[in-house]
Amino acid sequence: MPRFAFDLEYDGRAFNGSQAQTGLRTLQTLLAQAMTELNGETVQVRPASRLDAEVCAEHLPCDALFARDWQPLELAAALTSRLPADVSVTRVAAVHDRWHAQHDALSKRYRYVLVQRGSRPVLDLHATWVRQLDHPELLHEMAPLLVGRRDLSGFACLRRDDSDGDDPVRTIHAASWTIEPRPLGTYLTFHISGDGFLYKQVRGMVGAMIHVAKGRKPLSAFTAAIDAGRSAERIGNIAPAKGLVLERVVYDPEPAWLPL
Amino acid sequence: MPRFAFDLEYDGRAFNGSQAQTGLRTLQTLLAQAMTELNGETVQVRPASRLDAEVCAEHLPCDALFARDWQPLELAAALTSRLPADVSVTRVAAVHDRWHAQHDALSKRYRYVLVQRGSRPVLDLHATWVRQLDHPELLHEMAPLLVGRRDLSGFACLRRDDSDGDDPVRTIHAASWTIEPRPLGTYLTFHISGDGFLYKQVRGMVGAMIHVAKGRKPLSAFTAAIDAGRSAERIGNIAPAKGLVLERVVYDPEPAWLPL
Repeated sequence: MPRFAFDLEYDGRAFNGSQAQTGLRTLQTLLAQAMTELNGETVQVRPASRLDAEVCAEHLPCDALFARDWQPLELAAALTSRLPADVSVTRVAAVHDRWHAQHDALSKRYRYVLVQRGSRPVLDLHATWVRQLDHPELLHEMAPLLVGRRDLSGFACLRRDDSDGDDPVRTIHAASWTIEPRPLGTYLTFHISGDGFLYKQVRGMVGAMIHVAKGRKPLSAFTAAIDAGRSAERIGNIAPAKGLVLERVVYDPEPAWLPL
Repeated sequence: MPRFAFDLEYDGRAFNGSQAQTGLRTLQTLLAQAMTELNGETVQVRPASRLDAEVCAEHLPCDALFARDWQPLELAAALTSRLPADVSVTRVAAVHDRWHAQHDALSKRYRYVLVQRGSRPVLDLHATWVRQLDHPELLHEMAPLLVGRRDLSGFACLRRDDSDGDDPVRTIHAASWTIEPRPLGTYLTFHISGDGFLYKQVRGMVGAMIHVAKGRKPLSAFTAAIDAGRSAERIGNIAPAKGLVLERVVYDPEPAWLPL
């Protein structure tokens, strides 16, 4: 049975996240339905990453096993025609049978976008509004402190299930902010890449950095939270899903992607 | 009675356009309701420009007369709190009694965004998808041909009402395309500014240029349409509302805008 990888562009705003949940509109359920129609028997789809409700992705690879050999581009076109306006197949690849979109992922890169302006933003649907940051320069100091291999589960949310006992140690390869004035406001974009992220961890990091940049906690509180691992005090709020986008999932080697 | 000008950011996707129509969700109706609540008696709102359903605006000035003197920023904040997520007041000004958002406008600038890519776009909600343009370089040749003072009503739609007899002559001050490769596709952006535009005229111009850039009509057909005025043959389709944004309305002098 041949396995195929699909790279998806995904607007998560009208989904209850990527993972199948009974009775809810999720990416995994919707993809499995569309593929099962094409395959004639049930298809299981494995996304590379769990995305919460409303989180979007520019590139979200997934894989699935099919009953017969397809021309990859034909399969992708047939699948595309069965998908709604908020999901699109951008690349497809035939992969070997043991390829796994999640387990074979070497690293993931996310961005989180804030827009700072006096008036409520209307046209940008993928940025979180902040009215004022008194110390935006602190963002540049905080981001690099996240880089390294350690337990940063104090920034994540415990799921209150068995996964809470899982190893929380992850490696963050890079983390940085760019700050760019544009006509409609100042855009502050956080980029982070690492070998994996815990539940709501990126949003927890961003929420903490916003809190410090607003002057509500000192930089030392952020440093202390990094050192404290799981027992860190929560700083600020988990940042809204709205600003978060999965930009890239890296494999080595990459599947032999065929662009649509 | 004091008059105020409001500059709005406006996501038109869930509106039946800007002009009041009985029983439909329009910008004019919604603003008038919110302002009437604040004013205690009926308020009429005059937007600077008529926008069709789904067309968006970064800056859409409007004006209205109020029964009492407000602090402009207080009025804007009170209005903002009564507006839904798809409209926002970005600037406010106290203006003289004869100031008219539409009649005093000297020029308007629109942009129209196309994204060329193989797969259907998902995350950009303000761009129109084209799969392939065989002759994108022709866009740079066509745009400047639109500049000047003449009747270009062949690119517009007749309203089939009394306005069809109105003077169709307008001055186009500038028109150009930029073509920019980005990770998610090649973005082709048309900018046009002029003293006014007829019904669906910008979208008609874009539709004609797309048709020529796809190689479905020669450049000479576009030139002929410019020369033929109202009797021009229609080239291509009216481009979808989705890619069109009103960027700016210019006054001289500008109202004494106070940013929020």
